[in-house]
Amino acid sequence: MAFSASSPKEGMHFSDRANATLFPTDDPTLISFDYGAPGPTLLPTSLITLAAAARFARPDASNALQYGPVTGDKEFRYELARFLRREYGDEDVDMERLVVTSGATQAFFNLVTIFTNPATVFLLEDPTYFLAAKMLRDHRIPSSRMVAIETDAETGIRVDLLSTALDSLSARDPQPPDVAGTYPYVLYLVPTHSNPTGSTVPTPHREEILRLARKHNILVICDDVYQLLHYDTATPPPKRLVAFDDLAGETGGNVISNCSFSKIFAPGARLGWIEAPKRIVDAIKLAAVSYSGGSPNHLTSNLLIPLLHDNHLHTHLTHLRTQYSARLTAMLTALDTHLGSTPGVKIHRPKGGYFVWVELPADVDTTLLRKRVVEGLQSGEVGQQRVTFKQGADFSMSGDGCRNALRLAFAYYEPEVIAEGVRRLALVLRAVGVGV
Amino acid sequence: MAFSASSPKEGMHFSDRANATLFPTDDPTLISFDYGAPGPTLLPTSLITLAAAARFARPDASNALQYGPVTGDKEFRYELARFLRREYGDEDVDMERLVVTSGATQAFFNLVTIFTNPATVFLLEDPTYFLAAKMLRDHRIPSSRMVAIETDAETGIRVDLLSTALDSLSARDPQPPDVAGTYPYVLYLVPTHSNPTGSTVPTPHREEILRLARKHNILVICDDVYQLLHYDTATPPPKRLVAFDDLAGETGGNVISNCSFSKIFAPGARLGWIEAPKRIVDAIKLAAVSYSGGSPNHLTSNLLIPLLHDNHLHTHLTHLRTQYSARLTAMLTALDTHLGSTPGVKIHRPKGGYFVWVELPADVDTTLLRKRVVEGLQSGEVGQQRVTFKQGADFSMSGDGCRNALRLAFAYYEPEVIAEGVRRLALVLRAVGVGV
Repeated sequence: MAFSASSPKEGMHFSDRANATLFPTDDPTLISFDYGAPGPTLLPTSLITLAAAARFARPDASNALQYGPVTGDKEFRYELARFLRREYGDEDVDMERLVVTSGATQAFFNLVTIFTNPATVFLLEDPTYFLAAKMLRDHRIPSSRMVAIETDAETGIRVDLLSTALDSLSARDPQPPDVAGTYPYVLYLVPTHSNPTGSTVPTPHREEILRLARKHNILVICDDVYQLLHYDTATPPPKRLVAFDDLAGETGGNVISNCSFSKIFAPGARLGWIEAPKRIVDAIKLAAVSYSGGSPNHLTSNLLIPLLHDNHLHTHLTHLRTQYSARLTAMLTALDTHLGSTPGVKIHRPKGGYFVWVELPADVDTTLLRKRVVEGLQSGEVGQQRVTFKQGADFSMSGDGCRNALRLAFAYYEPEVIAEGVRRLALVLRAVGVGV
Repeated sequence: MAFSASSPKEGMHFSDRANATLFPTDDPTLISFDYGAPGPTLLPTSLITLAAAARFARPDASNALQYGPVTGDKEFRYELARFLRREYGDEDVDMERLVVTSGATQAFFNLVTIFTNPATVFLLEDPTYFLAAKMLRDHRIPSSRMVAIETDAETGIRVDLLSTALDSLSARDPQPPDVAGTYPYVLYLVPTHSNPTGSTVPTPHREEILRLARKHNILVICDDVYQLLHYDTATPPPKRLVAFDDLAGETGGNVISNCSFSKIFAPGARLGWIEAPKRIVDAIKLAAVSYSGGSPNHLTSNLLIPLLHDNHLHTHLTHLRTQYSARLTAMLTALDTHLGSTPGVKIHRPKGGYFVWVELPADVDTTLLRKRVVEGLQSGEVGQQRVTFKQGADFSMSGDGCRNALRLAFAYYEPEVIAEGVRRLALVLRAVGVGV
């Protein structure tokens, strides 16, 4: 068997290399602070090559190609639990409470189907991850069943407002419909280094969220994809919210930690895991989508076994933290330099994750600003700065809040590119009167 | 960087090799005709090893690790379209109408969410693939919105009954709710070499299904995973149903061909594709689940590029067809030998796919029989035959039909094991009076 390096037959070779990824990286002149992804130089090409060779060399290689067990490959979950115990500093992580997924997005999509009924009310942070709300709309969940809870850009969801909202909801409908296996409420949260504001919910607030979840029978789906990306080495991040639930016992069943390898390894792997109490894991096992396909991404999970086993993923993650941290520092330094003394500008300073949230003077409309920037990019308007950002309104539950804010992703580019991008951004802002 | 061959530290090595796949293959004495999967000797271990090495050796290796484009990697879709044009003998397969998925199961689950509303009525073959109906129940779709259409074990869904059912449904509710982007009806079908009966819908029936789909605004989701597994070399299978829709034009939008690499390459790859008209592809692109995660299984799709490009997948598929065909022959021969002359026994003879459907005398209850067999296996009862099968009622929409039928999967085992399994099955049947 042979593989050709070039085209074996004329006209049968693919030659269009543009748009090979989700991002238009074929435009090297553009600095896009939109991309919530590791940059090309941080993708583990050597690691995956060696991991594949190691896994396929084993005598049980064919098991990686068969339908996998419903909650995922046992050896992978064993190694993953070992990795997480070390990274979280939490001995309570148990492979029996881990379920392999094909990434946090697909897992969230499936969880909404499996654990809700047509009367379930969804509580969301406001601002929130823009695609989470859109995924709920794709589930035909009407706005009347989505409740926005204001967040604080430092401490995340306002737990006092969450409590008030739940009291009011349960007073309105004191007997929420009881459909076996479903929850009357789902709370979607990015509790650690959130998307978009970079906020982290403090430990006492986590305890209060769990108390409310028990009281009102809420399923809290935590997008924990940034939990392992904490750059403040002096203080650890709060424990993930699921650790406050009763993981091993009979009373647990209110929190799911929905995690991914996208930010700590490779988005293209489309591999993730759920950590959840026994009751939830048991329910996932019974879902037809689990059984019909077997383990999601069974092959890819098998490729990661050697990386986890020999601690290469730990080494890689340590490297990523250093790199991401340097990128965050570069962004904050550049923002301070260009906008630090501008009245009305507030630069939020996350301790981890992927995003810096910037609030501008109240009269700046970042939705209009982005429209101008993108139109300028397309028309090639003279003087146009080749930089983009995400407008704050994209993350607003009403679609109309946070109009004076913008989100900057710092994980994708090298520090010097980030500095240049922020310089361009400052010029864009100056053109609309910010920092003149 | 090094990978250890054995445990680097005591107590840190995973040693439990049992249940490494979805199937309890750790019991070598059991012959299970349940498994709808390629057997271990048919899994392409060498191919995937070489493909991974080839793909990762390319200078653009890191693109395989990034978020992929929403409808999937362009080069993969180019090579896939080329492969399908050859295998289907249909020049109309176009990469722009292919969308990468993480397998037919997850794709079906997502399509139901994206394209239906709380009033959509689901029409299903009866008997049907048992997990399809269960997936609909996991979507909280009540029985009142599922309509069973009787099938013929040779020609599949009874098109006359489908037409009558639709007339009656549309008379009952002449104005089905119009929710943008959704369909009032979904028809789920395995049109070619069906699961469970092995039936194939003839071409004129396909034309009639399309006519009905246009008339009533039905979305027909075809589980086409056996379309490429046709073993009757004298006659080609009918064209897939999507080819009767208007794939490139503006009037198309009623049929989705939901396909998978599970049966033609490896279930663990969790990789598949959808072929659909432009209108449907455009809608999938807009779904948040597509954008948030990027292409499903982007990495795995990249591994298959070299296999498609150098026609290794064609060679492998040709090999699989020969092997599966020999297994089917072994099963039919053994069934003829042991049960061929038994009054009341009807052995259906599929021309492809994975399954043989056997009807037994009306007084035989295969649900009870399987229960006895499984209990015998567990208790180690003397004289128990170590063989299992799927009971017909599992595929019945009411859960109570087809009680005198059973489904035998023939893809998993070598011909001589199949012959032995059928011998055991005949002994089991003899014990309940069939073929005494």
